[in-house]
Amino acid sequence: MLVLFGLLSCLPLGLFAHDLFGVRDDLHFSLEARQANKDGSVPTYKNAKASIEARINDLLPRMTLEEKVSQLIQGDINGWMDMSNPLDDTLVHNDTGLAQIMSTRAGSIWAGYQTPWEKLVYAITVGQKYLMENTTLGIPALFQSEGLYSKPCLHGFTDNGTIFPSPIGFAASFDRQLIHDIADVVAQEAEGLGINHIFAPVLDLARELRWGRVEEGLGECPYLTGELGYAYVHGLQDGSRRNTSSTAIARVAATCKHFAAFGTPQGGLNLAQVSGGERELRTAYLRPFNRACVDALSIMTAYASYDGVPAVANSHLLTDILRNEWGYKYWVTCDAGSIDLQITMHGTCDTRECAAKTALESGLSGEMGGGTYTYETLVAQVKAGQVDVKYIDDTVRFLLRTKFSLGLFENPYPYADYLSTLRTPASQAVLQRADRETIVLLENKNNVLPLSKSIGSIALIGPQVNRVTFGDYVFFNASNNGISPLEGFRQHLTNISSSTKINFAQGAELWSNDQSGFPEAVQTAQNSDVAIVMVGTWSLDQTLLWTPGTNATTGEMRDQSDLGLAGAQLELVKAIQSTGKPTIVVYVTGKPIAEPWIKDNADAIVHQFYPGEYGGRALAEVIFGDVNPSGRLSVSVPRDVGTTPVFYNYLKGGRPSSNPGATLADGSLMFGNQYVLNSPQPLWSFGHGMSYTTFAYSGLTLSPSTVSHSAGTVKLSVTVANTGSRTGKEVVQVYATDDRSSIVTPNQELIGFAKVEIAPGKSTTVTMDIDVKDLSLWTKDNKWIVEPGTFTIKVGTSDQVFQNATLTVS
Amino acid sequence: MLVLFGLLSCLPLGLFAHDLFGVRDDLHFSLEARQANKDGSVPTYKNAKASIEARINDLLPRMTLEEKVSQLIQGDINGWMDMSNPLDDTLVHNDTGLAQIMSTRAGSIWAGYQTPWEKLVYAITVGQKYLMENTTLGIPALFQSEGLYSKPCLHGFTDNGTIFPSPIGFAASFDRQLIHDIADVVAQEAEGLGINHIFAPVLDLARELRWGRVEEGLGECPYLTGELGYAYVHGLQDGSRRNTSSTAIARVAATCKHFAAFGTPQGGLNLAQVSGGERELRTAYLRPFNRACVDALSIMTAYASYDGVPAVANSHLLTDILRNEWGYKYWVTCDAGSIDLQITMHGTCDTRECAAKTALESGLSGEMGGGTYTYETLVAQVKAGQVDVKYIDDTVRFLLRTKFSLGLFENPYPYADYLSTLRTPASQAVLQRADRETIVLLENKNNVLPLSKSIGSIALIGPQVNRVTFGDYVFFNASNNGISPLEGFRQHLTNISSSTKINFAQGAELWSNDQSGFPEAVQTAQNSDVAIVMVGTWSLDQTLLWTPGTNATTGEMRDQSDLGLAGAQLELVKAIQSTGKPTIVVYVTGKPIAEPWIKDNADAIVHQFYPGEYGGRALAEVIFGDVNPSGRLSVSVPRDVGTTPVFYNYLKGGRPSSNPGATLADGSLMFGNQYVLNSPQPLWSFGHGMSYTTFAYSGLTLSPSTVSHSAGTVKLSVTVANTGSRTGKEVVQVYATDDRSSIVTPNQELIGFAKVEIAPGKSTTVTMDIDVKDLSLWTKDNKWIVEPGTFTIKVGTSDQVFQNATLTVS
Repeated sequence: MLVLFGLLSCLPLGLFAHDLFGVRDDLHFSLEARQANKDGSVPTYKNAKASIEARINDLLPRMTLEEKVSQLIQGDINGWMDMSNPLDDTLVHNDTGLAQIMSTRAGSIWAGYQTPWEKLVYAITVGQKYLMENTTLGIPALFQSEGLYSKPCLHGFTDNGTIFPSPIGFAASFDRQLIHDIADVVAQEAEGLGINHIFAPVLDLARELRWGRVEEGLGECPYLTGELGYAYVHGLQDGSRRNTSSTAIARVAATCKHFAAFGTPQGGLNLAQVSGGERELRTAYLRPFNRACVDALSIMTAYASYDGVPAVANSHLLTDILRNEWGYKYWVTCDAGSIDLQITMHGTCDTRECAAKTALESGLSGEMGGGTYTYETLVAQVKAGQVDVKYIDDTVRFLLRTKFSLGLFENPYPYADYLSTLRTPASQAVLQRADRETIVLLENKNNVLPLSKSIGSIALIGPQVNRVTFGDYVFFNASNNGISPLEGFRQHLTNISSSTKINFAQGAELWSNDQSGFPEAVQTAQNSDVAIVMVGTWSLDQTLLWTPGTNATTGEMRDQSDLGLAGAQLELVKAIQSTGKPTIVVYVTGKPIAEPWIKDNADAIVHQFYPGEYGGRALAEVIFGDVNPSGRLSVSVPRDVGTTPVFYNYLKGGRPSSNPGATLADGSLMFGNQYVLNSPQPLWSFGHGMSYTTFAYSGLTLSPSTVSHSAGTVKLSVTVANTGSRTGKEVVQVYATDDRSSIVTPNQELIGFAKVEIAPGKSTTVTMDIDVKDLSLWTKDNKWIVEPGTFTIKVGTSDQVFQNATLTVS
Repeated sequence: MLVLFGLLSCLPLGLFAHDLFGVRDDLHFSLEARQANKDGSVPTYKNAKASIEARINDLLPRMTLEEKVSQLIQGDINGWMDMSNPLDDTLVHNDTGLAQIMSTRAGSIWAGYQTPWEKLVYAITVGQKYLMENTTLGIPALFQSEGLYSKPCLHGFTDNGTIFPSPIGFAASFDRQLIHDIADVVAQEAEGLGINHIFAPVLDLARELRWGRVEEGLGECPYLTGELGYAYVHGLQDGSRRNTSSTAIARVAATCKHFAAFGTPQGGLNLAQVSGGERELRTAYLRPFNRACVDALSIMTAYASYDGVPAVANSHLLTDILRNEWGYKYWVTCDAGSIDLQITMHGTCDTRECAAKTALESGLSGEMGGGTYTYETLVAQVKAGQVDVKYIDDTVRFLLRTKFSLGLFENPYPYADYLSTLRTPASQAVLQRADRETIVLLENKNNVLPLSKSIGSIALIGPQVNRVTFGDYVFFNASNNGISPLEGFRQHLTNISSSTKINFAQGAELWSNDQSGFPEAVQTAQNSDVAIVMVGTWSLDQTLLWTPGTNATTGEMRDQSDLGLAGAQLELVKAIQSTGKPTIVVYVTGKPIAEPWIKDNADAIVHQFYPGEYGGRALAEVIFGDVNPSGRLSVSVPRDVGTTPVFYNYLKGGRPSSNPGATLADGSLMFGNQYVLNSPQPLWSFGHGMSYTTFAYSGLTLSPSTVSHSAGTVKLSVTVANTGSRTGKEVVQVYATDDRSSIVTPNQELIGFAKVEIAPGKSTTVTMDIDVKDLSLWTKDNKWIVEPGTFTIKVGTSDQVFQNATLTVS
């Protein structure tokens, strides 16, 4: 969702100026005639035991055109509650506004406000009650919020929701179960409050690192994104609400977004067009959606255009592929204001009528707020014969299917005991796991880490030490909930009864070239046994991010042209390193940091992508070895913005030269070819991450090693031994290369992974089912085929192959 | 063409190890039976008066399979002449080698060696004479060389060929007639020597500025590239060779390259894959080819893949579009070694047989050297029923059509008086025009330029002053032919009898961070009235470029990750500017230079893309005002590599934010959105270029202002007045914006231009025919359509609109 405070001059004034004054046409039928059968019996659509399809088929013909269109337009809870003051707890609503919203925008209701829970629960209850009891047909609404972390729990002024690590970070866990469990907490916190529609997960690939929203996705890999997206969708959805029908299949609706190919805008500029063809669309951008989202109860479209077609008007994507090929049955919403962008940005329509008609007929289901509510024109357009009502009917079916699948017709209400579903001990345990498992150890020269618990003193230096840095899409002041690294180190040292002294100096601001704090920082390092320098990027919560005059280097609509550290941060690291003290650099960021000097010169590097609330504490646990780091990069790290993209699964031939140039440490220039003075190789590639122990691989087998192209799976087995002295978790990664293919395929592609914990001196045999269809390619003739031939199957990280084998497809 | 000295480790050893030992199968027919008709009369294919199609139809059935395949494979003149020593002038050939080449690789012969002309003429004469008189059918060969500048004239050790400015530079002239005249000289110098096939023009768009070959193309604009490419093709081809048939339509064969979309490799890395869809392919990459190349007698494919399909195997491009849609009738060659890249880079074949079959059946005509001669497998593949002979036949037809169109069957020989066609006074006049018209005046604060002829002294400072910097694709030591800026200023001051003193200091090397020369340079500036600092990029000639251990920042396979000045050059400019002397910066480069500090701080900036031989002199003429600069950027100039791409005709919505950030001069950071600390706007956009005079526009009219979508042209008329005090040339540029379109169209697109010279105080009315089909778009349904509606027609540069009008299409 895009919040716009005049930043997009091309958008119309109507943004977020919610029009509450629409007037509903008179009902054309008597209430009784439509709410009950002629014989007075309960109609099928109200029968909890009827099949969902029977209920849809029964309900749809009872609806007026106006009621149908009303289902397609997003309403807003502020239509009947004053949500302007997040501190306000007045449980009073506006009946007129309620009736107006429910007459024209009743299908789904935006409720993602920062507000006391009591007020939110009241507002949702009032809304659903009105729909269930005061409208002709009693169709409950979707109530919606974001869900990237755990925002649906609306940690407002009570500061009581759970913030998990950013997705780019928790993806680094390479742990399906963890991601499932995170989403489970998110949904649990939403469900009780009456939120039943969550705008997550984000499945955009991190191929364009300048883009501000890299932090919201699950990294650069289609397979990893698909697997973890699947875990997230099912973590959110699986289960059912209390007291609902037996046909209900989900407790909240997940929303896969942004459909599709939103993450590679030209120039890294949010909203800008994406270049690409059908093959890249299929094999990269759509793969995660196809894996994760066919059962998701909703999908959200992208803002951008792909090869010149706006996502909201892309019938090839929305109808040919999503509906006809994939058989997707549920609700497809646009993102805020994006139907209007056809008029104001894409230039493909000049009227609201055109915008609405084009989107609807292309296969877009619903219109969010944030624009001029173009779908309001649909009633008149149908009546005038401009739009065939079948598009409306088909679209209403998708929404009703989502609602019946949630069991909302039986029970759409918040739970009376919603407080018991929030911040439970179990959810806090998930948070701790998440923060611990997402930290990536990038470098560890001479095993400088972990630090000894008896070390005399540590210097904590840098602008990320004494602050909590969350990603975007968190609510105002959410960071008050988090543990800063400074606080985390204090807590942890207390916890382990260590007498290590913490010396703190900020040294520099994140956002300034001012070096006046350097002398104190240098002195602090000199006074300590080791220096830990914490630098990085920063985002802002959803209030501050959109407030003019604020600064941030990542987040929505904060796109960078440089991937190095901003301001004086690199110079601060250099100043500390020059003291000669062991220097450990900690990145706290929303995207990779391109600083080759730090890779070459720091004694150790720890990367913590924007953490959750437990982040500072988890960092201390890793630094002192109480947690053995097990995160792996979900995104490759370039040397420089000018060497991007660096994603690991580039097509064969993508990095043709083996003769890179360089600027040497003494400033002399070593000329090469590609690049003249740099290298296209990443500093660290996807999948990289170290441990405090070591692992050895042996005995890779594939069973069978020859399979039919139409076979289901191949069993991969490999033995992993912990050859070090600490218990550790290894991420066993399986990559495939299609040795010869009719079109150009990636040099390698992840096709399996498993995370296993192994005690020192022990070994374990890891088995995985490799899905043969993950070896398929999109042919010149536009078909998916697993081509006969050999595939090289490698086990290792993308940097390092531990074992390989050949799989033959016949 | 790609010359490979072990740089591409993925290529096989066979590169350039020319195999001269192939043995031809026995002929299957007697010589008489095929060389003459049964009645003894001259066969149709030898009848100069017969139609070309009749001659092809007569000749093809006379050819054996082996002869046909031999036509498809490029031979090499070194098969019968020792070309290893460019100084050697021995007129002796190897009869065995000659017979071997002509039996298996006789269709086209690479002759692009640096060698004395006498030897070249001898070698070509021997080759053609053998073919005409000693082979069964007497089919002459194409003799081939490069032709980007005027290399076909093979300015070898005699240093006597004409080097024109680099294409990115001469495109800046925006002068169709000049480009036509340049190509005319190139062809004239080729024709006499017996070269009849020239590998130019390059029509790759400069959308990825890191790519080393940006200098070889005609800029970023599809329309400009198409128009100037058309002029180049016709300048090369138009006319006919001496003593040929009346059906001959060209004197040399042009080669449009690289087909297609080669100029946007991922990461800017030469050969890497290109991302893009059908719409971008049609509306950007293919437009120049469609405009310029349908009548070109040959086309060369790209090395890269587009959306996963290698260009040499892209049947959609080579057959569906080129042959079936465009009706292209002539020869399509691959680039050197690129059929083998299917095996060694793209991974789409694992045998030479597969590589040859795939290319041939996809629609590629001929195989160049540089690989393993995979087409040698075709005879056996046809005999084995693996390849249908119809593909061979169709392909031979294309080559024969090119040869008949050149009149080669009547006279394939060099001219006895070839020396009279070289470096004529007329061609030198074209050279002077070219070097004068391609210089672009980017900035001129306080009209510091032109300098007064009575100025006491000028400091010429910088690494580009005392050297001649040509682009790539020139022969060894070609720069000896050029006039350096230092020499050019001396000549010009003598020529205008000025007593201005030149003080020269190099200050720095192009390729080093060494600042030891700065004090002398600063002193030199302080001793002078004005400082002219010449900095930039550099390439190397085709011998040095591929010699390990050499350095260059531009040219083939010299891709940059940074678009600023290399080494100490920026610091040198800063040091000179800090003297307080008026500081004029001259860029001599092969691509845009991203140095915002120089834009902000230099008093004037002159951009000379790699010049021709007259370059240094032309620069002096511009600096002193004897030539009024009239060049316009053919490519936009970014602020930084991280803000690319910056091409002007981005799709609507491509630069969404109006809130850029910046690092201010005092080092403080001003945060914005897009980008956080930079701007996506270019320093100067496409079309920009200043003059020493000023122009005013009035009276823009379109006639008619409402046209049918199927109309031919609209007449545009505008009056341009020279409102300054000097005669000057203005480039009147016409841009169109499709106000509303069914798909996303460019924010603007050049659709017309004209260059006019106007005396001070005078005005002229410029009229242009705007082609309505240049307003067409590629629909969702994959058709070209000019959509009804309004188009905004702007006259001006892309930065500045002087007049606009509305064109309505019905």
